[in-house]
Amino acid sequence: MTATLGRSSDHRDVATEVLRRGRDVVTPALQAAVDRLDDASRTQARYHLGWTELDGSPGAGGGKAVRPALALLSATAAGADVDTGVPGAVAVELVHNFSLLHDDLMDGDAERRHRTTVWVQWGASSAILCGDAMLALAQEVLLEAPSAHAAAAAALLAVTTRELIRGQAEDLAFETRDDVGVAECLSMASGKTGSLLAASASIGAVLAGAPAAQTEALHTYGHEVGTAFQLVDDLLGIWGDPAVTGKPVLSDLRSRKKSLPVTFAIRNGGEAGRELARWLATEGEPAEDELHAAARLVAAGGGREWAAAEARRRRDLALGAVTGAGLAPVPTGELVALAHHLVDREF
Amino acid sequence: MTATLGRSSDHRDVATEVLRRGRDVVTPALQAAVDRLDDASRTQARYHLGWTELDGSPGAGGGKAVRPALALLSATAAGADVDTGVPGAVAVELVHNFSLLHDDLMDGDAERRHRTTVWVQWGASSAILCGDAMLALAQEVLLEAPSAHAAAAAALLAVTTRELIRGQAEDLAFETRDDVGVAECLSMASGKTGSLLAASASIGAVLAGAPAAQTEALHTYGHEVGTAFQLVDDLLGIWGDPAVTGKPVLSDLRSRKKSLPVTFAIRNGGEAGRELARWLATEGEPAEDELHAAARLVAAGGGREWAAAEARRRRDLALGAVTGAGLAPVPTGELVALAHHLVDREF
Repeated sequence: MTATLGRSSDHRDVATEVLRRGRDVVTPALQAAVDRLDDASRTQARYHLGWTELDGSPGAGGGKAVRPALALLSATAAGADVDTGVPGAVAVELVHNFSLLHDDLMDGDAERRHRTTVWVQWGASSAILCGDAMLALAQEVLLEAPSAHAAAAAALLAVTTRELIRGQAEDLAFETRDDVGVAECLSMASGKTGSLLAASASIGAVLAGAPAAQTEALHTYGHEVGTAFQLVDDLLGIWGDPAVTGKPVLSDLRSRKKSLPVTFAIRNGGEAGRELARWLATEGEPAEDELHAAARLVAAGGGREWAAAEARRRRDLALGAVTGAGLAPVPTGELVALAHHLVDREF
Repeated sequence: MTATLGRSSDHRDVATEVLRRGRDVVTPALQAAVDRLDDASRTQARYHLGWTELDGSPGAGGGKAVRPALALLSATAAGADVDTGVPGAVAVELVHNFSLLHDDLMDGDAERRHRTTVWVQWGASSAILCGDAMLALAQEVLLEAPSAHAAAAAALLAVTTRELIRGQAEDLAFETRDDVGVAECLSMASGKTGSLLAASASIGAVLAGAPAAQTEALHTYGHEVGTAFQLVDDLLGIWGDPAVTGKPVLSDLRSRKKSLPVTFAIRNGGEAGRELARWLATEGEPAEDELHAAARLVAAGGGREWAAAEARRRRDLALGAVTGAGLAPVPTGELVALAHHLVDREF
């Protein structure tokens, strides 16, 4: 059984083109920034970003680069040229990758996109230092931006980084708690995923000196899209097609992750929720039939329906914010397409 | 046998008073900044800074706070009031402690100032996240400074942080190399110790909008004092009195650290240097008499004399920079006293 939040094919072509264009614009500036790093951090960062392989040969490229694309769109949406957004785009991508480097180490993940992670290849200390260097470099690039509003953009990035860390610290704390509520879990997701998407979607407008009403609308758009994206990601972590997600079937249940739909079902799902909570408290490698039974409990406890509805609600809040702010029409249409592309995934 | 670079008692009282005054001014602002951290990071940071003990009771206080004192002096040396330097003082102390948190984890140090380190108490992930949060907070505090030059100060801090990380990455790389040269080793020390002292000694003047000649003189002062301090620290790591240093006798030789005097002796010390290099390449727990023999080889290879002379030379460069820049006389005198206090230690 698959479901979807909308007809994503309508927006897929626009979003794919926006992401491709964003990568084309940002990659040279990002490469120039990474070239400034110390020798060890530069080698590790270039590998992590997918630009080189371990033997020094050219890499197959990195991720989708959603955050840089949002930063560029937020500059043009505010009426500035695309170049105005470039330092913001470089900075948010550096912060994103700083957090991935440290996350992979903290989570003990040996692979990312089917490649060995930096901490496995070069050791924990290298992953810590390379991440630290990328975070500092993000501020450096932003503060050099030829904009009268560079300091405001840098302040936004610093506050955002702390929000990101708050989300990660809460995620860590939740692992050893069995009483996490839905509001807490949403606040954690807001920190881990919403905050940097909010900064990405508004930093270009901040650099452009846009009025507060516009930067706030773009910030809301990014925050709501980010939280909706996390909700859908959590649904895909249970019901996603392994061929699409690249993760094993039922992967989040396999690791007994207290994701958003699971947390909702436990707190609001009556007997199904209590049974789910009891199963999560068990230990050892779960059998396949247990995983399927647990997924049925999440659905029976209302977790699947709630997460899908909440993702739709937040996507619509994002669309409402960005379409009512007097932003330039073409980039606004592209932001709309991107929101659908990121949220309306099949699960 | 003890030696000294000068009569430190002449300056000790002034320096002690400057450090005490600095702590009094900066601590409330630093506490207000740390209060903004997420719950977990705040608890860990307050413990790390010596403000609370593990049971929540008041702590015995933290380190000397040299960096904040320099930041405040650099504002007043440039003719501004002390308040102008406070956001800079808070920021450099946060960056210093970010690096200590990550260093303790990377080095596997279980204790700092006779207290359990954060990574031992709360786990590696917490030490990573708390350090990350302090680094982001440093930029945040600085960018909120009521100064037209806050962005310039933030840019200085970002570049400095990358220098600090370069030094740490090189230090890490040197552990597995046996061909490290003196210039490389000095460059590593310049990154690890010189860069943040240089930023500390100039950030207040930057916030005050001082002319470039003054901020550069203060930057040179901090950089040279920092490198001299590291040279003396390395001498104390071999010949320091355990009652003063708080470390075991001959501690740097015990861990076979390729410190500056050791590196000089290996590269320039003829037969004594070659014998020292052979000993460093051996493995296993060294006997006490081996350590004393190794210390004699460092001295015979000229490492002790060179490091002491180089520390004096750099201290004098620092003094020359800061006394010739037309800075306010009283803070300049205090910077002179602080340079002597930090460098003229008995070894």
